[in-house]
Amino acid sequence: MKCVHISASKGYDVLIGRGLLPSLGERAAALCRGRTCCIVSDDTVAALYEPAARGSLEQAGFTVCTYIFPHGEESKSGENFLKLMSFLAANHLTRTDLLVALGGGVTGDLTGFAAACYLRGVQCIQVPTSLLAMVDSSVGGKTAIDLPEGKNLCGAFYQPALVLCDIDTLDTLPRDIFLDGCAEVIKYGVLGSRELFDKLHGDYDLLQVVAQCVDMKRAVVEDDEFDTGRRQLLNLGHTLGHAIEALSNFTLSHGKCVAIGMAMMARAAVKKGFCPRETADEIISLISQFGLPTDTDTPAQEIYQTALGDKKRQGGSLTLVVPVQIGDCLLHKIPVEDLLGWIV
Amino acid sequence: MKCVHISASKGYDVLIGRGLLPSLGERAAALCRGRTCCIVSDDTVAALYEPAARGSLEQAGFTVCTYIFPHGEESKSGENFLKLMSFLAANHLTRTDLLVALGGGVTGDLTGFAAACYLRGVQCIQVPTSLLAMVDSSVGGKTAIDLPEGKNLCGAFYQPALVLCDIDTLDTLPRDIFLDGCAEVIKYGVLGSRELFDKLHGDYDLLQVVAQCVDMKRAVVEDDEFDTGRRQLLNLGHTLGHAIEALSNFTLSHGKCVAIGMAMMARAAVKKGFCPRETADEIISLISQFGLPTDTDTPAQEIYQTALGDKKRQGGSLTLVVPVQIGDCLLHKIPVEDLLGWIV
Repeated sequence: MKCVHISASKGYDVLIGRGLLPSLGERAAALCRGRTCCIVSDDTVAALYEPAARGSLEQAGFTVCTYIFPHGEESKSGENFLKLMSFLAANHLTRTDLLVALGGGVTGDLTGFAAACYLRGVQCIQVPTSLLAMVDSSVGGKTAIDLPEGKNLCGAFYQPALVLCDIDTLDTLPRDIFLDGCAEVIKYGVLGSRELFDKLHGDYDLLQVVAQCVDMKRAVVEDDEFDTGRRQLLNLGHTLGHAIEALSNFTLSHGKCVAIGMAMMARAAVKKGFCPRETADEIISLISQFGLPTDTDTPAQEIYQTALGDKKRQGGSLTLVVPVQIGDCLLHKIPVEDLLGWIV
Repeated sequence: MKCVHISASKGYDVLIGRGLLPSLGERAAALCRGRTCCIVSDDTVAALYEPAARGSLEQAGFTVCTYIFPHGEESKSGENFLKLMSFLAANHLTRTDLLVALGGGVTGDLTGFAAACYLRGVQCIQVPTSLLAMVDSSVGGKTAIDLPEGKNLCGAFYQPALVLCDIDTLDTLPRDIFLDGCAEVIKYGVLGSRELFDKLHGDYDLLQVVAQCVDMKRAVVEDDEFDTGRRQLLNLGHTLGHAIEALSNFTLSHGKCVAIGMAMMARAAVKKGFCPRETADEIISLISQFGLPTDTDTPAQEIYQTALGDKKRQGGSLTLVVPVQIGDCLLHKIPVEDLLGWIV
């Protein structure tokens, strides 16, 4: 087992290993004063792992209730958030009690935001069961729900009490959803590590790769918890990716859209003279090698219009993450009206 | 004009004076990098003060949109919160832009929570126009909305950028709503100042009284921003008051319910030997003198059941605020099942 300790406004451990889920209850009991716990999970993940999570928590003395919602991005809605809040209140959870987010990015974001808001904050343990959630959304305290106007527009910075990445849970992940996580892993390589980027071309140890990504995220989050500077680097491929995702009505997955967004930024970086063509080719080639898309039929004008609503916009400008070489990107501020020229 | 500076996780000024509203724009421009602003107000207050607020903000260079909702506690709902969030997104507010809460406690709580959540946090200026909001809800960063299961169950600790208390706005306050604020003012006297308590029996300067209450709240908030200890003193009369308010379906106002809750706690404190009968009589007499209620027909059993859902409950116990003498209260933890004996 690997342990990455995150020193944010609140310190906590990210544990990465195999066979960790059965230890959930014992670890929760050590962190939490209350003895009531709500597991939050979607129907797919709950069918696979809720009994093990519940058993472990009950064994450790918790009274457990479970909130199960339909899987998919549509559940990251305001309506589902309010239903979850009412469920917590109806089950009389108090300030010292605990939420457990058992699932992928949607579950983690929704549950984290609910934990931030319920009684103005209760503890939350993240148990990510997708690669995407392990390397990205479960670490760092960004929680959110979507609005009809766009993704993640309503949320909070709220650090979990613990993140438990049980690599065994990835065994049940459909290949397609596993690949979504790979897009984020490639992102870490492009952002900060040629060594990781190269490793991804061959056989790699998944546990090691997850731990490496979490540790890279740790460094960024510790430096800029509230996303006012360097943390924006993690948005590589996301400004355009989010717009493409929204325009597909979320029929295209987050990872695929980030892959397309990264490829677009790589091509634009060449066009604008930020990086050599070889670098862009390397990025696009690795994305393709994983079976992820590198382009879209969505018209540039539509992507542009949708991206204008992105929350990373500040007044009349927008900060893009631009690849310079493998392992090195920079933040580049542009007037919003210039964005169209970056969609290639 | 008086200025009370609050040194919480974020420092900010509370300005208390007459004729302050016309200075809103200039002060906002000095604090905020963006130049788009959303005024949030209910229909009653908007009719009176929105034009002045808007004019001042536009004069200072802001583009202003206004979100107006029906007055009353029912608007502190999850549904209205989501509508407001969508309104902000539809008007393309960005992270550097500003919300202005123009109104009473409902407006302040709703807007503050929206500011905490929109894009994970934008700046908020509180412009309280009720006595209750000036002395209580606009200062200290507690924001929230109600759930069907109870008041203020969903919220955040989120400090404003500025609080502007224009005493002139109290001139238009209906007598009944003004009295609601008086219940909170009496609370400050009972909690921490015999001098303030005595002053309230005669003619008093409203501006001075508001400033004194804000300063008392400052001391408590600075000591315990996140409500884990001493800040709970501010809940005097609120545990029972909230339950009575909920049981009346919010037809009884917050201030009236706090008044009843305070009177109940005063009587219970005598019964349980915490304070002499004379102290309770003094408290109940001052509440009556203001024309506020000191009792309710609601059965004790119902108040008890409803109070069990209160968010201040921790596991199996509950912390009550008990008067010892005028100007001195203490926190007293009881097993939840003992609460019934305190409802007298």
